[in-house]
Amino acid sequence: MKVEIGHGSGGKLTRELIEKVFLKHFNAPELKPLQDSSYVPVNHKKIAITTDSYVIRPRFFPGGDIGKLSICGTVNDLTVSGAVPKYISVGFILEEGLPLEELEKIVESMAKTAKEAGVKVVTGDTKVVEKGRCDGVYINTTGVGEVVRELSPLSSEPGDVVIVSGYVGDHGTAISLAREAFEIETQVKSDCAPLNSLLLPLLEVEGLRWMRDPTRGGVATTLIEFSESSELGVRLYEEKIPIREEVQFISEMIGYDPLYLANEGKAVIVVSSKDAERALEILKSHPLGKDARIIGEVTEDFKGVRLITKIGGERRLELLEEDPLPRIC
Amino acid sequence: MKVEIGHGSGGKLTRELIEKVFLKHFNAPELKPLQDSSYVPVNHKKIAITTDSYVIRPRFFPGGDIGKLSICGTVNDLTVSGAVPKYISVGFILEEGLPLEELEKIVESMAKTAKEAGVKVVTGDTKVVEKGRCDGVYINTTGVGEVVRELSPLSSEPGDVVIVSGYVGDHGTAISLAREAFEIETQVKSDCAPLNSLLLPLLEVEGLRWMRDPTRGGVATTLIEFSESSELGVRLYEEKIPIREEVQFISEMIGYDPLYLANEGKAVIVVSSKDAERALEILKSHPLGKDARIIGEVTEDFKGVRLITKIGGERRLELLEEDPLPRIC
Repeated sequence: MKVEIGHGSGGKLTRELIEKVFLKHFNAPELKPLQDSSYVPVNHKKIAITTDSYVIRPRFFPGGDIGKLSICGTVNDLTVSGAVPKYISVGFILEEGLPLEELEKIVESMAKTAKEAGVKVVTGDTKVVEKGRCDGVYINTTGVGEVVRELSPLSSEPGDVVIVSGYVGDHGTAISLAREAFEIETQVKSDCAPLNSLLLPLLEVEGLRWMRDPTRGGVATTLIEFSESSELGVRLYEEKIPIREEVQFISEMIGYDPLYLANEGKAVIVVSSKDAERALEILKSHPLGKDARIIGEVTEDFKGVRLITKIGGERRLELLEEDPLPRIC
Repeated sequence: MKVEIGHGSGGKLTRELIEKVFLKHFNAPELKPLQDSSYVPVNHKKIAITTDSYVIRPRFFPGGDIGKLSICGTVNDLTVSGAVPKYISVGFILEEGLPLEELEKIVESMAKTAKEAGVKVVTGDTKVVEKGRCDGVYINTTGVGEVVRELSPLSSEPGDVVIVSGYVGDHGTAISLAREAFEIETQVKSDCAPLNSLLLPLLEVEGLRWMRDPTRGGVATTLIEFSESSELGVRLYEEKIPIREEVQFISEMIGYDPLYLANEGKAVIVVSSKDAERALEILKSHPLGKDARIIGEVTEDFKGVRLITKIGGERRLELLEEDPLPRIC
């Protein structure tokens, strides 16, 4: 067996790789929940640690670049874990021949985003490989945050509601358009943004259960994973899911399901029905959350994720085998 | 200007890149000392954070593999910073087509080394890129440690002694031989090893000033950087530096200076002359430190590093411009 592109999709093959290779050998209990961050004790209190490598193609795209993305992704992973993002390490792998001005643009963008998000880049490393052994630049960022509140899908209960913080599928659509010359004129750009100022206030909402930024694999994969971890089901209402007309149009044209498209500035939030209005109010008071809405509910009637379609049908959402859009982050 | 292989050498070009691009934009004071780890406060105490990407070629070599190396390197960076290594994150970038058995061998080796070093792999990420956009596998590891004692080159004083924990240049030589088919029969293998059990006991030695694992750029580069940071000079005695006959022979044959060759299981230690014997005793009581010895001294007579050669001459050691052996770690 060989590594396939799909092993990096965040879908079924990634899951297999994690279970058959990584979890088989690395058996730390911290790894098992397969969440975005791990909670570990330091100095008798918990910190959250998260890591991501960024290999997105192209490096520059409408709404962002690999540098901005590499800070946002890690800030967001800490945030949805209920931690205040504090420190970030940066590891560059550079390809021989990369113009230094490009690297500087990327670094500038990272510094700007880190400042905006209130995190410090505290340590770094640079490696250079020969032409044809990289694709310009790959970036790893690892983040450390101070845990305010540990969140777990297991705290969820039937009747909880599922909120999405805004329009779905923008990042995936923007990257797909930036990559292929479809000759489509569009305003769609990546939603890439640090979400800590939007989401951290939710930690004060008692009924908050769980949050996740639906990146690789999109809202569908995120909720399938939530369902597996919580052992509860999710009922989604297609008509309630905010998708831009352009995103819907382009998705249909190129055969993607926007529910599986990556987002880099959105959150899926599970909250008790009692506190749903309060959570929405907090989200809507922030520019990044003004389009937040309830898109579904948690149920014990079934496991997995079922989509109630606009015409009233029901469709079960499954993990994808294939990668609709590789190297999306 | 474009990125060159030398920008990843750890020498002069790397320095330029760091100063002109990274430090220009990332201006956290934690980055400035250019040490192996950064000290940052978490929960009112200090932790150390360090990151490294591993792109070594070949992936498997006598004495180790990229997996073992990726754990040792990060464990050692925390250790020489006076911190107890606790947690490690792992980010894989995989090339499409990599045999899964190879990946599993690497992961197994990482898990074994982590266990040996007493650190936990707590979070991970995997990306896959197309054939020709990687070289099999690149690994980023980022480590978090609890700081026992902050070490700084600035605490050093004239008269301090410089110790090396064992034979120099083994890793660089082993990689160089594994890479090129020189048709040399040799026993030299990489010294790749986690050094926490060897070095952490030194933190109890009052006169301990500073430690560093002389990886990329070797003992020479490490001490040049020490000299720059401490604003003191280092006098090294060639005849005291432990170099295996085979390493010396092969280095001369292929034109490398063993003092610039990477080590992955050695430490350079600066300690007060008063406590030097105690430090040596601690080192020699450990299998990885049995060949430890004093190789030089700190002086205020000059800045930089001067090597007193075996025949009594004096040679100033400079940062290398070119990379004698790229992708060594």
